[in-house]
Amino acid sequence: MKKWISPSLLAITFVLSAIGHYANWDHTLQFVLSAIAVVFVAGFLGRATESVAHYAGQRLGGFLNATFGNAAELIIAFFLVREGLYDMVKASLTGSIIGNLLLVLGLSIFAGGLKYKVQNFNVTLAGLNGSLMIVGVIALFVPAVFLNTHSITELETDTLSLVVAGVLIISYLAWLGFSMITHKKYLDDVTEDKEEELPNEHAPSWSKGKSILYLILATVMVAFVSEWLVGTLESLTERFGLSELFVGAFLVAIIGNAAEHSAAILLAMKNKIGAAVEIAVGSSLQIALFVAPVLIFASYFTGNTMDIVFTTIELVAIGVAVFIAKSITQDGATNWYEGLLLLAVYIILGVSFFLV
Amino acid sequence: MKKWISPSLLAITFVLSAIGHYANWDHTLQFVLSAIAVVFVAGFLGRATESVAHYAGQRLGGFLNATFGNAAELIIAFFLVREGLYDMVKASLTGSIIGNLLLVLGLSIFAGGLKYKVQNFNVTLAGLNGSLMIVGVIALFVPAVFLNTHSITELETDTLSLVVAGVLIISYLAWLGFSMITHKKYLDDVTEDKEEELPNEHAPSWSKGKSILYLILATVMVAFVSEWLVGTLESLTERFGLSELFVGAFLVAIIGNAAEHSAAILLAMKNKIGAAVEIAVGSSLQIALFVAPVLIFASYFTGNTMDIVFTTIELVAIGVAVFIAKSITQDGATNWYEGLLLLAVYIILGVSFFLV
Amino acid sequence: MKKWISPSLLAITFVLSAIGHYANWDHTLQFVLSAIAVVFVAGFLGRATESVAHYAGQRLGGFLNATFGNAAELIIAFFLVREGLYDMVKASLTGSIIGNLLLVLGLSIFAGGLKYKVQNFNVTLAGLNGSLMIVGVIALFVPAVFLNTHSITELETDTLSLVVAGVLIISYLAWLGFSMITHKKYLDDVTEDKEEELPNEHAPSWSKGKSILYLILATVMVAFVSEWLVGTLESLTERFGLSELFVGAFLVAIIGNAAEHSAAILLAMKNKIGAAVEIAVGSSLQIALFVAPVLIFASYFTGNTMDIVFTTIELVAIGVAVFIAKSITQDGATNWYEGLLLLAVYIILGVSFFLV
Repeated sequence: MKKWISPSLLAITFVLSAIGHYANWDHTLQFVLSAIAVVFVAGFLGRATESVAHYAGQRLGGFLNATFGNAAELIIAFFLVREGLYDMVKASLTGSIIGNLLLVLGLSIFAGGLKYKVQNFNVTLAGLNGSLMIVGVIALFVPAVFLNTHSITELETDTLSLVVAGVLIISYLAWLGFSMITHKKYLDDVTEDKEEELPNEHAPSWSKGKSILYLILATVMVAFVSEWLVGTLESLTERFGLSELFVGAFLVAIIGNAAEHSAAILLAMKNKIGAAVEIAVGSSLQIALFVAPVLIFASYFTGNTMDIVFTTIELVAIGVAVFIAKSITQDGATNWYEGLLLLAVYIILGVSFFLV
Repeated sequence: MKKWISPSLLAITFVLSAIGHYANWDHTLQFVLSAIAVVFVAGFLGRATESVAHYAGQRLGGFLNATFGNAAELIIAFFLVREGLYDMVKASLTGSIIGNLLLVLGLSIFAGGLKYKVQNFNVTLAGLNGSLMIVGVIALFVPAVFLNTHSITELETDTLSLVVAGVLIISYLAWLGFSMITHKKYLDDVTEDKEEELPNEHAPSWSKGKSILYLILATVMVAFVSEWLVGTLESLTERFGLSELFVGAFLVAIIGNAAEHSAAILLAMKNKIGAAVEIAVGSSLQIALFVAPVLIFASYFTGNTMDIVFTTIELVAIGVAVFIAKSITQDGATNWYEGLLLLAVYIILGVSFFLV
Repeated sequence: MKKWISPSLLAITFVLSAIGHYANWDHTLQFVLSAIAVVFVAGFLGRATESVAHYAGQRLGGFLNATFGNAAELIIAFFLVREGLYDMVKASLTGSIIGNLLLVLGLSIFAGGLKYKVQNFNVTLAGLNGSLMIVGVIALFVPAVFLNTHSITELETDTLSLVVAGVLIISYLAWLGFSMITHKKYLDDVTEDKEEELPNEHAPSWSKGKSILYLILATVMVAFVSEWLVGTLESLTERFGLSELFVGAFLVAIIGNAAEHSAAILLAMKNKIGAAVEIAVGSSLQIALFVAPVLIFASYFTGNTMDIVFTTIELVAIGVAVFIAKSITQDGATNWYEGLLLLAVYIILGVSFFLV
C-alpha cells in the first residue's frame, strides 16, 4: 500500500495542480488536477501522521493531525471572516463538525471494523470526549434559544457571543492541559500494541525529526491543494445548481477534511482506532471549542462581530451528529455496524441539506 | 401457571370471538369476547416463544417473537395505507414504539425485578440498541425540522421520505446481518443459564418443530383476534368520546402488542430478561427502522406517497421514550425501580394524549 | 480547617444578622451581616453533615443533607405560592436545580479533583440518578410541548399538572424505598474508606445523637439566615437593575443552596465524592420530583392551581444541566476537568439569563 505514495508522483501532481491554479486554467481541469493531487498529498499526510504517532503515541499523534488538519480550515475561514461572509463561515464550520463526527469517524470505524471484529480504545477518553461534545452543543444551542424567545439587542447578542466564545476557549485550553499534562497517562490508549508492534514491518521508515518535518510539510501541501480545489468548486457547483448551504456544509467540508479522512481511515485499518477517533472527534471538538470562538474574536476586531447564533438546521445537524457519535463511542469499543450507522445519519443529513 | 392455558379453553374462546366478529354481534359483546380470547391466545404465544427461545437462544427467540408480533401490525397498517389513512398509521406506529419501549419493557423489568434483585443482559447489545434507537429518532426528527423551517415542495418531501426510508431499511437489514451473522456470539446473552437450566421442569414440553409450528400458529391467532378487537374499539370509543390520537397511539397499540406484552413479561419473570428486552426494544426498532419505511414505499406504489413527517407530539413522545429507555437499558442491568420509571413516563404521555 | 468554625463566632454572626433583620437595619448592612453569617452557619452545617455521614454512611448522610438543605427552599416557596407568585417560584426551582447540578456539583468535583487525581463513586447509582433526572426533564417538557402545540383549556392544564405531579411524587417515594430499603447495599459507596478511615483524625468529634441534633440545628439556622439574606436581595438588586429571572434563578438559588455548597465541597475535598454527588444530584432530584409537585398540590388547595408549565428558557436551562451532569457522572468517576466543564455551562447559562 505504501508503494504508490511515490515521492515523484506526489511532486508532479502537486506542481501540476499549482500551475493549473495560478495560470487560471479551465475550472473543470483545475478541479480534476487538484482532486488527483489531494489523493496523493493526503496519502503522504496519512503516512507522516502514522510515523509521528509511532513516536508520540496514538493520542498526541492524533491531536497533531487534527490540529494540522484544521489549520487549513482556520486560514480559509479567516479570509471569509475578513470579507464578512459569516453565513458561509458557519455553514463550513457546521459541515466540518458533522463531517468529522459522521463521515470521517464513520468510515474509519467501518473500514477498521471490516478487518477487526472489535476495536477498543480508552473508555474514559470516550466519556470525556462525549462531555466536551455536549458542552459544544450547549454553547451553540443556548444563545440561539435565548435569541429566538426574547428580544435582545445586537450589542447584547455580541456580548453573549464573546462571553460564550471566551468560556469555550478557556475550556479548550484547559482540556489540552488536562489531557496532555495532568491526566496524560490516565487517557492513554488501550495497549493492544504489545501483540501488534512485534514485526519490524511496522517500524516507521523515517526518523523522529523527519517524521515531524514531513507532517508539517504534508499539512501545508494539503492546505494549499484544498484551497485550490475549493476555489474551483463554486463555479462548478453553480453549473450544477447546488445550494450554498449544501456546498458549504458538505462539499467544502469533505474536501477540506481530506487530511483527516485519509489519515484516520488508514490508522483504523491498522487497528489504531484510538488515534483515528482522536483525529475525527478531536478535530470536531477543536472546531467547536477553539476555531469557531477564535473566529468570533477575530471578527470583533474587524468592528463587525460575528455572533454565535447558528441557524436551526445547522444546530440540529450538529446536535444530531453529537448524539449519535457520543452514543457509539461511549463504550470505547467499535465495530463495522457502528460505522455504518454514522454514515447512515450522514446520508440523511446530506440529502436533507441537498433538498433545501 | 401453565395449567390455565388449556387447549380446549383456547380453542373455545378463539372460536367464540370469531363467530362474534363474523356474525357481527353487538360491539360490546364482541369486545368482551375478543378481549378474553386475547388473554388465552397471548398466553399460548408466550409459551410457544419460550419454547422456541429454549432451542434458539434468547436473542433469536426474542427476534422471532418481535417479528411475529409486528406481523399483525404490519398487516393492519397496510390496509390503512391502502385507504390513505396516513395520520392513523403514524399514530399507531408511534403508539407501538412507545408502547413497546415504555409499557412492555417497563412491565417486564418491573415484574422481573420483583422476583430478582438485579437482572443482567449483554451490555454491548444494550449499547447498540441505544444507538439504533437514536438513529430511528434522528431519521424521523431531521425531515420534520427541515419541513418546518423551510418551504419544501411536496415532491421534495416525498423524495426525502423515500431516501430516509431506504437508508433505514438498509440499516435494519445490515443490523440483522451484524447481529445474526458476523457478531452473533459477541451479542450473546449473559449466561446465567448455567445455574438456571438445571432442573428439568424448565425443559420445554414441545419438540423443536412443534414449537416453531405453534409459534406461527399462535402469532396468526393473535393477529386475527387483535384485528377483531380493534374493529370493535372505534364504535366503543366513540361512545366514550375519546380522541383518535389517544385511541390510535394507546388503545390500538396496547391491544396490538398483546403478544409482546405477555411473552416479554413471562420471560422476564423467568429471569430471561435478555429475551424480554429483545422483544420490547427489538420490536420497537423493527417498527421504526423497517415497518414504517416499508409502509412509505408501499404508499409510493399507490401513487400517493406517505411522507415521513410525524407531528410534533408524536416526535416528542418517541424521542422521550427513546431517551429514558436508552438511559435505563444502557448498563445492561435492570431492577424493579427502573421498570417503574418507564411506566411513569408512559402514564405521563398517556394522560397528555388523552387530554389533547 | 475546622478551627475557624468557632462556636462563639458562629453565635455572634448569627445573632447580629438576626438583630439586623428584625430591627430592619439598612439593607446593605443587613446583606453584609447575613452573608458573613451564612459562611459560618454553612460551615457548621457541613461539619454536622460530615459527622452524620460518618455514622450513617455517605449516601444516607448525603440524603439527609439534601433534604435539610431543601427544607429552607420549600418553606420560602410555600410563602410565595400563598401569595400566588408562581413565576418566581418556578424561576427559583429552576435556579435551584441548575445550581445544584452545575455549580454545587461542578465546584465539588473541581475542588475534589485538585486534591485527588480521580474520584470514584457507585456507577450503578450514577446511572439511576441519570435516569431519574431524565424523568424529571420529561415530566416538565411533555406538558409544555402539549400546551404549546394544542389549545388546551385551563382545567385540562390543571388536571395534567396534578396528574404529572402525582406521578412524580409516587416515583420519588418509590425511589426512597428502593434506595434506602430494597436495594440499599446495591447502591453503596465505593469502599475507598478502608484506606482512608484508618487515622483517628477522621473520627468525628461528636457522638451520633449530637451529630443529628447539630445537623437539624444547623439546617434551621441556614434556613433563617438564607431568608434574611433573600429579603435584602430584592431592594439591592433593584438598585443594580437586575432582571427578576436572573435574581430568582441565580442569586436566590446560590444563597438558598449555601448549605449544599459548603457541605458538598468539603466532602469532595475529603475524597467522599459519593456523598458530595448525593447532595448535589440528590438535592436537584428532590426539587424536581418532590418539592415542585408538592407545591403544585399545595397551590391546588389555595383554589388557584399552579401549572407545571415552565417557560422555554427554564426548560432549556434544566434540560441542558441534566444532559451535561448525566454525561459527566455516568461513569462513576470524576476529575477536575469535569468539574470545570460543569462550571463552564453554568457561566454560559448565567450570562444568558443576565442579559435577557
